[in-house]
Amino acid sequence: MADRPHTPNLDQIDLPSDLKGLNDAQLRKVADELRAETISAVSETGGHLGAGLGVVEMTVALHAVFEAPKDKIIWDVSHQCYPHKILTGRRDRIRTLRQKDGLSGFTKRSESPYDPFGAAHSSTSISAALGFAVARDLGGEGGDAIAVIGDGSMSAGMAYEAMNNAGHLKKRLIVILNDNEMSIAPPVGAMSSYLSRLYAGAPFQEFKAAAKGAVSFLPEPFQEGARRAKEMLKGMTVGGTLFEELGFSYLGPIDGHDMDQLLSVLRTVKDRATGPILIHAITKKGKGYAEDRADRGHATAKFDVATGEQKKAPSNAPSYTSVFAQSLIKEATKDDKIVAVTAAMPDGTGLDRFMSRFASRCFDVGIAEQHAVTFCAGLAAGGMKPFCALYSTFLQRGYDQVVHDVAIQRLPVRFAIDRAGLVGADGATHAGSFDVAYLANLPGFVVMAAADEAELARMVATAVAHDDGPIAFRFPRGEGVGVEIPEEATPLEIGKGRMVREGSRVAILSFGTRLQEVEAAAEALEARGITPTVADARFAKPLDRDMILSLAADHEALITVEEGAVGGFGSHVAQLLAEQGVFDRGLKYRSMVLPDIFIDQAGPREMYAVAGMCAEHIEAKVLDVLGIEVLSQRA
Amino acid sequence: MADRPHTPNLDQIDLPSDLKGLNDAQLRKVADELRAETISAVSETGGHLGAGLGVVEMTVALHAVFEAPKDKIIWDVSHQCYPHKILTGRRDRIRTLRQKDGLSGFTKRSESPYDPFGAAHSSTSISAALGFAVARDLGGEGGDAIAVIGDGSMSAGMAYEAMNNAGHLKKRLIVILNDNEMSIAPPVGAMSSYLSRLYAGAPFQEFKAAAKGAVSFLPEPFQEGARRAKEMLKGMTVGGTLFEELGFSYLGPIDGHDMDQLLSVLRTVKDRATGPILIHAITKKGKGYAEDRADRGHATAKFDVATGEQKKAPSNAPSYTSVFAQSLIKEATKDDKIVAVTAAMPDGTGLDRFMSRFASRCFDVGIAEQHAVTFCAGLAAGGMKPFCALYSTFLQRGYDQVVHDVAIQRLPVRFAIDRAGLVGADGATHAGSFDVAYLANLPGFVVMAAADEAELARMVATAVAHDDGPIAFRFPRGEGVGVEIPEEATPLEIGKGRMVREGSRVAILSFGTRLQEVEAAAEALEARGITPTVADARFAKPLDRDMILSLAADHEALITVEEGAVGGFGSHVAQLLAEQGVFDRGLKYRSMVLPDIFIDQAGPREMYAVAGMCAEHIEAKVLDVLGIEVLSQRA
Repeated sequence: MADRPHTPNLDQIDLPSDLKGLNDAQLRKVADELRAETISAVSETGGHLGAGLGVVEMTVALHAVFEAPKDKIIWDVSHQCYPHKILTGRRDRIRTLRQKDGLSGFTKRSESPYDPFGAAHSSTSISAALGFAVARDLGGEGGDAIAVIGDGSMSAGMAYEAMNNAGHLKKRLIVILNDNEMSIAPPVGAMSSYLSRLYAGAPFQEFKAAAKGAVSFLPEPFQEGARRAKEMLKGMTVGGTLFEELGFSYLGPIDGHDMDQLLSVLRTVKDRATGPILIHAITKKGKGYAEDRADRGHATAKFDVATGEQKKAPSNAPSYTSVFAQSLIKEATKDDKIVAVTAAMPDGTGLDRFMSRFASRCFDVGIAEQHAVTFCAGLAAGGMKPFCALYSTFLQRGYDQVVHDVAIQRLPVRFAIDRAGLVGADGATHAGSFDVAYLANLPGFVVMAAADEAELARMVATAVAHDDGPIAFRFPRGEGVGVEIPEEATPLEIGKGRMVREGSRVAILSFGTRLQEVEAAAEALEARGITPTVADARFAKPLDRDMILSLAADHEALITVEEGAVGGFGSHVAQLLAEQGVFDRGLKYRSMVLPDIFIDQAGPREMYAVAGMCAEHIEAKVLDVLGIEVLSQRA
Repeated sequence: MADRPHTPNLDQIDLPSDLKGLNDAQLRKVADELRAETISAVSETGGHLGAGLGVVEMTVALHAVFEAPKDKIIWDVSHQCYPHKILTGRRDRIRTLRQKDGLSGFTKRSESPYDPFGAAHSSTSISAALGFAVARDLGGEGGDAIAVIGDGSMSAGMAYEAMNNAGHLKKRLIVILNDNEMSIAPPVGAMSSYLSRLYAGAPFQEFKAAAKGAVSFLPEPFQEGARRAKEMLKGMTVGGTLFEELGFSYLGPIDGHDMDQLLSVLRTVKDRATGPILIHAITKKGKGYAEDRADRGHATAKFDVATGEQKKAPSNAPSYTSVFAQSLIKEATKDDKIVAVTAAMPDGTGLDRFMSRFASRCFDVGIAEQHAVTFCAGLAAGGMKPFCALYSTFLQRGYDQVVHDVAIQRLPVRFAIDRAGLVGADGATHAGSFDVAYLANLPGFVVMAAADEAELARMVATAVAHDDGPIAFRFPRGEGVGVEIPEEATPLEIGKGRMVREGSRVAILSFGTRLQEVEAAAEALEARGITPTVADARFAKPLDRDMILSLAADHEALITVEEGAVGGFGSHVAQLLAEQGVFDRGLKYRSMVLPDIFIDQAGPREMYAVAGMCAEHIEAKVLDVLGIEVLSQRA
């Protein structure tokens, strides 16, 4: 355990109400200690460090001025919420962040009344805050609704949809644009340039930053902070017109690390706001610790506070992500029609490597999955071979575009779906549980899952070769299993699975990387004298009908295993078996899918244990279906 | 058949290339005749009239200036494409619009090379056009990429995402904002007010409308239309800054019915554009025919051209939509926590009636389903009982928000899902095929389907009463079956189905309004001496396990029927049966779902015939599963 920082002022704060008696100088001290405590905590747990460090002063100022939990403060994306958690009664558990049974790495309604809304996916906060504001004005109990939204999150369409609606409804609503000039990767998009122009001309050290909107919004002299606040009105009118045109009063830009500015502006807004207001605060991601790092400490492993050295476990095999990226680069050297699209995740998807090799053929469109998908559809219609690389959970953002723009038009967009299945520390909000179900029932789609990294390389090649409609392949977070990756990956035959192990009585049909668990279960079963057949389906669509029907015909029992919810691979198999009359004559059929619960964060293996999808569960399922009783191993 | 209009100029035009030799005066004549032909055609077919009439001159001007199909013109939403279809080789089939085996009511890639992209859902065009533009610049064959997007479509986030990306990429790209001051309903949203301000100060009759952006964009004197075009540069700089701030050059506003302005601006843009350009054209929906109607002829039945009288078939029962609306109004009079949200569909969802009764409790958020869902989540978190009324196909736009903001937080948002199943003339793009599959695997969700309008009324009451998590109920387009609607609808017990008809050997378990077809099939079977049991599941989640398991136990065969794709209700039933070991001992189980094809427009009944989901198909399925051979009725 590293030395804990000395935090005499912070030690007095258990809940935000404890901030109320403090003067501004004391609040500054609390903020400084809160920063040290945040760094110390994340050094022990790992997690998102940079975002939280960027809003330390904002967090203290918001809680000093407003009255949570009556006032609803919504952090977007909420991985910036660690300081907020420390101030809202959770300091004692802050060193359990993102661990099993610990605090979530995001705000979470079930965790605290101070978390009115979980925003683990970005750009939802203004919509939610508007909901709270309208509920309040219709007689609900809430107070102010405050969305703190990053500039990266502002690139998503739903933030615009919400502002468009809020500007129309004219309810009192506070949006704080936490502008740190980068979300995860360096910023992209015209909005980002626009924001840069807004503060380029405005030296906020002098607090001259101002808005025309403030003239109407701040009609009278102020009691407190009067001198500085008045200067706002005299300051440069640098713009903010885009927000004003959407019906918001614009205040800023202000220095989001200057407690005087923050407190003054927030107090004024609290006293006087009537309609929707946008406060534009400039912050520095990683402020006070990681601000010099390229990623400004976006996400970090455990680290040494003194040296900054991260304590990563050594890896035994390349990650699926890197195998995808390397495979795509290899294919792209041979085929100049291949292009790649990411939605603000060049690192996470591995496309940063593709981008440095093929700059003109790689597109980071911002946090904009809807656009990403349809942009790919346009690219495909224009004759390119687009790879749309998204996490499973974020592809949900572009679902209608997948249906309407890609599937119905049968356009050959290639979906590289990373983070399929359970993902670990990011928890339920980031689980990739539903993609097979929501893709495999779309006519004309090909849906694959890689069982290991060699299979993934072949699926990339398959996707390149497949030009008759959309194709998707999914793979999990984390390391591969260490198999050799073919130098020249050859495409798979569409709709053909493979036999892995020939056996009898029971066949286990795996779809995806549970295959390793299936094989481990098969080993354990062999020790009991049962020799299961094991097959890798490779395709959820089209199914390998011949293989599946002969597995069903040749075995007493058939069990499907997949890293996804009901409605996906197993459901398609069941539909085939039903239609072919296989159930008529009796088949011990079982489908192992993710259970009907949202599984909290833990290690991926621990999450699969909760899900009942590890080798021992597969083994137990086989024994159960064959009617073999065993002594409980726990007894 | 009404008298056809006299169209000597239009008669000379088979393809856009035929416009190339015409002078501007002749093009005006073609436009006038094209308007008359459009009115005449829609009077025979019904369909979207107003949108097309608003872009008659734009259509002629675009095809006169640009070179489709090399240049990609993308209509968004493409129900404005009827004039375009007439000019692009499809005049001979224009009177088959929206009919079985006829022309689609939208642009459709498989129908014509002049339809480079189908935009039947709104706001996709800029993303698609950017894809074409990038493909072109990477060596593809296309020419200019032109998105014609309505002001209503501009309220959707994905349009903003696309502009944000286009402004960043700086490719040559032409966006024409077809601003008719209303999409389907009167406009909402701050963007709409902004657009109104843009043209309020600019009398474009004088062609003074101008943009600062034009100064850099039009650097030299012009050959053609020089006098008027120069005036643009001297004209009022009324704004367009919002678009400029997103990286677009802004030109406008111009009069979208003034052929001189259109031709001049389009020629200039074609000659000189380098980066992304937005042309702001003011048009009048329904121009020349329906502009005085409240909906300006948005969608119309067949009508008499002379009198305007619509030829609607008499209705026998209230529509499901109106039963939903009336039921909700009834509930809302008793419970002031009930609020309702629509995404630009107050008429289509029936919420216009709710709105006129409870103006402060009804919210039209614009074409913004992502925001609609999360706004409802915020309302629910704030203590209200929000009803989110969307079409099934459009709920796809908010899927991630359903998962992340509603389901994971277990917030009691009520989803009223209209247009479930196949929808008729709007065709495959508007089919509500996937909602059960993508909702019923979300933990904590309740998913219902109404079998008739009385059931729908009870499901509205059920949704009001259910406060422990999200609940959805789906119902189809069109009329109910004529059953009596209870004066006081009582809530259903969650997860309880109902027996409809007791029989033997085979049980048919229906989910939704196929129940009428199931009953018809049962009648026909009884005539053959087979008495099927019929049950209405009511719930896809939670399933009525007791009922389903006893149906399975008591019958030789069990057949599920639903108006949805595989992965939905039947898949959940199969999962239950598998887990309970029901298949082990043999059960003739079949699941009738929508087939694995996108079904083109036709009457809903015709579409269900294609799908194989009518009474005769259900009857045939029963006979087949019981092994009863019958003489083919067609032989």
